[in-house]
Amino acid sequence: MERSSIQTKDTWDLSYIYQTNQEFYTDLQKAKDLLQVIYQQKDIFLNDVDSFLKFHEDYIKLSRYIQKLHCFAHLHCDVQPNEQDYQTMYAAILSFYDQVSSTLDFYTVMMIDHSDIITDYLKDERLADYRYSIQEILRQKKHVLSQEMETLVSKTSSISDISSQVFDALRLDYEPVHVDGEEKFLNSATLTEFLKNKNPEVRKEAYHHFFKEYKRFENVFATTLSGVMKKDAFYADVKKFANPLEASLFDDNVPTSLFFKILDKANQQYRPLFHRYNALKKKKLNLETMYNYDLSVPLIEYETKKYTIEECFDIILDVVKIFGDDYVKIIQKARDERWIDYYPHSGKRIGAYSSGCYDTKPYILMNFIGDYNSLSTMIHELGHSAHTYLSCHNQSPVNCDYRIFVAEVASTVNETLLIHYMLEHATSQEEKAYFLYELLENCVGLIFRQPMYADFEHILHTWAQEGKPMSAQMITDLYYQKNAEYFGKDVTMDEYVGYSCFYIPHFYYNYYVYKYTLGMTVALAIVSRILNGDEKQKEAYLNFLKAGGSKDPVDLLKDALVDPIDDQLYDDAFHYFENILNEFEEII
Amino acid sequence: MERSSIQTKDTWDLSYIYQTNQEFYTDLQKAKDLLQVIYQQKDIFLNDVDSFLKFHEDYIKLSRYIQKLHCFAHLHCDVQPNEQDYQTMYAAILSFYDQVSSTLDFYTVMMIDHSDIITDYLKDERLADYRYSIQEILRQKKHVLSQEMETLVSKTSSISDISSQVFDALRLDYEPVHVDGEEKFLNSATLTEFLKNKNPEVRKEAYHHFFKEYKRFENVFATTLSGVMKKDAFYADVKKFANPLEASLFDDNVPTSLFFKILDKANQQYRPLFHRYNALKKKKLNLETMYNYDLSVPLIEYETKKYTIEECFDIILDVVKIFGDDYVKIIQKARDERWIDYYPHSGKRIGAYSSGCYDTKPYILMNFIGDYNSLSTMIHELGHSAHTYLSCHNQSPVNCDYRIFVAEVASTVNETLLIHYMLEHATSQEEKAYFLYELLENCVGLIFRQPMYADFEHILHTWAQEGKPMSAQMITDLYYQKNAEYFGKDVTMDEYVGYSCFYIPHFYYNYYVYKYTLGMTVALAIVSRILNGDEKQKEAYLNFLKAGGSKDPVDLLKDALVDPIDDQLYDDAFHYFENILNEFEEII
Repeated sequence: MERSSIQTKDTWDLSYIYQTNQEFYTDLQKAKDLLQVIYQQKDIFLNDVDSFLKFHEDYIKLSRYIQKLHCFAHLHCDVQPNEQDYQTMYAAILSFYDQVSSTLDFYTVMMIDHSDIITDYLKDERLADYRYSIQEILRQKKHVLSQEMETLVSKTSSISDISSQVFDALRLDYEPVHVDGEEKFLNSATLTEFLKNKNPEVRKEAYHHFFKEYKRFENVFATTLSGVMKKDAFYADVKKFANPLEASLFDDNVPTSLFFKILDKANQQYRPLFHRYNALKKKKLNLETMYNYDLSVPLIEYETKKYTIEECFDIILDVVKIFGDDYVKIIQKARDERWIDYYPHSGKRIGAYSSGCYDTKPYILMNFIGDYNSLSTMIHELGHSAHTYLSCHNQSPVNCDYRIFVAEVASTVNETLLIHYMLEHATSQEEKAYFLYELLENCVGLIFRQPMYADFEHILHTWAQEGKPMSAQMITDLYYQKNAEYFGKDVTMDEYVGYSCFYIPHFYYNYYVYKYTLGMTVALAIVSRILNGDEKQKEAYLNFLKAGGSKDPVDLLKDALVDPIDDQLYDDAFHYFENILNEFEEII
Repeated sequence: MERSSIQTKDTWDLSYIYQTNQEFYTDLQKAKDLLQVIYQQKDIFLNDVDSFLKFHEDYIKLSRYIQKLHCFAHLHCDVQPNEQDYQTMYAAILSFYDQVSSTLDFYTVMMIDHSDIITDYLKDERLADYRYSIQEILRQKKHVLSQEMETLVSKTSSISDISSQVFDALRLDYEPVHVDGEEKFLNSATLTEFLKNKNPEVRKEAYHHFFKEYKRFENVFATTLSGVMKKDAFYADVKKFANPLEASLFDDNVPTSLFFKILDKANQQYRPLFHRYNALKKKKLNLETMYNYDLSVPLIEYETKKYTIEECFDIILDVVKIFGDDYVKIIQKARDERWIDYYPHSGKRIGAYSSGCYDTKPYILMNFIGDYNSLSTMIHELGHSAHTYLSCHNQSPVNCDYRIFVAEVASTVNETLLIHYMLEHATSQEEKAYFLYELLENCVGLIFRQPMYADFEHILHTWAQEGKPMSAQMITDLYYQKNAEYFGKDVTMDEYVGYSCFYIPHFYYNYYVYKYTLGMTVALAIVSRILNGDEKQKEAYLNFLKAGGSKDPVDLLKDALVDPIDDQLYDDAFHYFENILNEFEEII
């Protein structure tokens, strides 16, 4: 399907950002001028608190321009990658971003060098909004180099991002899949559908046609995946961190023990639970050999309905009314103001995301196909967008950006509430079983599979740090082996499993995936309490959404009444899974 | 065609390097051990001349290992890119190379810091072989940073090469071309054939099917091409060069005026000559519209024969006998010892090259299809291999590597001698016209088209230096425009012309292409004199081949009796072209 054949009402309305391309370039020019204005304050901004404040006000204005410009260009590129106007804009903003980094590379070093005087300035109430973010800069003291070295490090940004850029630019086409003698279009969205098909041949063909393209380009993907690992290792090294993991977690001010705790819980302590689940699946599916591409076949003979976009909104609005009117209004805005680009089409970016900033709507890209997964993805992304909306409307532009570390909480809470809503409204045992199964699958994805990804990614990072060569074979062998270990003996791995790691964008995000597990465990705790009528928890949660990025992530979560450092949180999550599994086993 | 269906005798024999993969890893381990031995000399190697000599002897041993290991892995990868064993070796040697760079990053800084004492050491006769290469290091004084900074710069090597690696890894497949109702396999070698087809539809289809794949992946190629330009700009900047051009030419100790002289001669002063040639072509081809993909259609109705490999050798041996027995024996060795991998097949690297080092044969990769172009490519690459052979047999390992700046002389001399041989042995006016035409086409490629490439590449480098964004559209528009300007009004540019820049590997080689023009002008001077019986020139030329990399390139050429700084050299080359054009115009 081509984008041109999709109705305007089903696409996002980016004209809220800029009505014309010209406006983009006008703002870009304003940002460029502002950069010079800021640069001219280099020698005076530390002189007194007024200059210091003025500098930071300009600085935040500049970052608002950059975020808005970036948003406009990248959203357009993600749906129309062949429109060169947008590619040019995207290149322009990336290039400007490099220019900003190099022009303002004095900032951090000067701040660190004058931390005493700055601590004094921060007592001024006019700087109240800036306190947290500036203290975050001062916290980097041990990892800031000399000005000369920092300048050089900042210049590397022009060459260090090629792996991710290539990964984003490399769009593949797939051979069609034969379903009942008919040729069907294959892309990432339809793959998900084909893998649910009852005919094992369809599943196998879809899986093979999809991942053989990743095998075909395995040397490119091995280059970009190892490239991004080397990049993370490079920056960790030059910034004096013990390893890439420490460097990544430093940003969130989270101890590395948290990362290993998650890996240990999922990959060691509770793995038998997951093997038990797979054994049950194999038995229930009645397959002699259950391949990895068989795992999405619905276990429950229940014909879920197809949802229109309107029906999705009806359900979502009903689910989120537990949060009160303000939250409901945000969801209505998302619909009425066309924040969402719904349908898949040729060239469109795969998957789904929410993306926006202080000066844009919190847009959502989806590949909506009307199944339950689409509904679930929609409420998930709306969770992010509501978080962004609440944060931007309750925090100053300085503190509105929440970190990825806490980002998955808002989305996963929504997704989990949706399932509980479905369970509650189930009208038959089959329907109930179906949604219990959905919940199990969700948990598996987030509390078992993401830790496997994290484990895999951690090994690649370690290889990169050790300077170990990483060929396509080594990478795919490792991924195959991790899958085999993790899924256990009841799941037979297809020959293409190793190549499926090349499909996952999150490995380009520097220790991102473990945050999904954290988000899920936190969400399960919050949802359980809210569903038990815990009003204090509900209020704490909404305040957490409004708090945006105004505190350390761990503190934000503690304010939301969940402590991510506490073992209990994780044990509760796995026991929750065990309980659902018990309930499911009984019912089927 | 698959590699497995090619006869062993028509493939190169890499067992001269290593008989088993195990031997590769044994040598890699030896190299790793040697690296530690060298590193342990860090604090003592400048103490006295004996330590200094020992250090450099070990150092050269290490670089011999690295070159040999690299050669083995990359040659294998280029013909069997899907054999993961070789990819693993290739990744291992690249990774080891990074390790060497970072372990020995003290070397240059310490050398520069102690240049006085070193100048004194160099008087020792035992260091005679090392004098030139060490003086080359000391020449970098202005561009060597502090140890701390150099260490950081050297660490960037792990992240700065992704663009080239992706470009090398991205192998495309093309839709077949229809010739007389039959589907024919399209790759870079057969493209050349199809573009000579008399049927304009075949030419158009081949051109479109080929370059539409580059358009399909335009965003990837734009990322890698702009990425490599940014890389060159980055290193030029941090190493305190005014621009990437200056940085690149510094290595060869050549003034930038030489680069601009070549561009000016080809792109300004003598461009009308090229337009005159294109006008003649259009008239002779009798095309109402002559597209760029029509330019390879033979102008002369002369059925060239197909050459077997043996026939090629017969002719080549006859051509090079002018250089005497020693040279002839080298060519015989190339045949008898199987230095050459002849035939194209699925997955094999496109184009042709000669590659080898002190401890390997000077191997040749080709995509031989038996036409005159294959013969010509073969004598061209054998020119490189003979140069390598003579250099390695007459210079110590320290000085045997000749630079790219002089490399194209040996190959172009051979190629030009071949055409003159063909002209001499022509038995008809048609045959004579045909080879005059070949000569013109050769000249066009080297003294007109390569300067256009250089012009294009220089603009991209300038954009990178200025931090200008480079989208696929900007790059392809520029390339289209350069082609249109340069070929003149008689050649109509096809819509895909802009994308053809993505096909050219040389843009990844940091100001490489202008060296072809230099090589051609030098070669024309040498060939003209040798064919006129100038024995002194012949001897000087052979000595030039034997001199390898023992002197500055400009000095080597002056010793070969050609001065690349002199305008006359270039004027002579263009007048040579004009004379051939006059002769051709008369004869047809």
